[in-house]
Amino acid sequence: MPTEQEIKTAMQAYIDRFNEDDLEGILSLFAEEATVEDPAGMAPIIGKAAITEFYTKVVNGKTRIHREEPIRGSRSNSGAMAIHIETHAEGSTLMIHAIEVMTFTDAGLISSMKAYWGPGDMENK
Amino acid sequence: MPTEQEIKTAMQAYIDRFNEDDLEGILSLFAEEATVEDPAGMAPIIGKAAITEFYTKVVNGKTRIHREEPIRGSRSNSGAMAIHIETHAEGSTLMIHAIEVMTFTDAGLISSMKAYWGPGDMENK
Repeated sequence: MPTEQEIKTAMQAYIDRFNEDDLEGILSLFAEEATVEDPAGMAPIIGKAAITEFYTKVVNGKTRIHREEPIRGSRSNSGAMAIHIETHAEGSTLMIHAIEVMTFTDAGLISSMKAYWGPGDMENK
Repeated sequence: MPTEQEIKTAMQAYIDRFNEDDLEGILSLFAEEATVEDPAGMAPIIGKAAITEFYTKVVNGKTRIHREEPIRGSRSNSGAMAIHIETHAEGSTLMIHAIEVMTFTDAGLISSMKAYWGPGDMENK
């Protein structure tokens, strides 16, 4: 099992690679059979092919993730972080406030990502 | 299913009642068969009797919860919030940084609470 610090380092790498538009770098953090549920409550997408398709859309050079507080660990293979996601379009910015919870494989790869945000957590600025 | 706003209101009520040392008020937010996993990765405690025992210990007049960011919703019956928990003892304060994820029953009661924090999320001030 990865240590608490290894989990936090991987979660920070997820943010950093996202903000560098490093699609391959993001995908390399995920296990082959990983799931992504974004937002929580929607059907999860399952497996590397579907996750590749998902991040190919959202890693678009216009979207940035800002972490709001320290990443939290756990006593097992999971961590959580509060973020906001800004997507810049001409003349406006869509901001989504989210909390992401990730679990990890023994090898330290993301086995699941679940992003908590609802319609009330979006705002246009 | 409770609305996004009802979930956020219940989570804020959890904080407020905790900070008023209102043990009965906290317990009334939980469903009979609810589970509490605090910290995440430990064996969950299950059912109202065990949850009553847990909160009887932590609602002690010396512990306060501070919310750090807006409570996040979802597209289903869950919400998440970043908090820190301060426990005051003579001459020092223990601070725990945590993210709590809650799910709710159709009646709007808490069916599960999971608090993400690890040894690295504690500090003495």
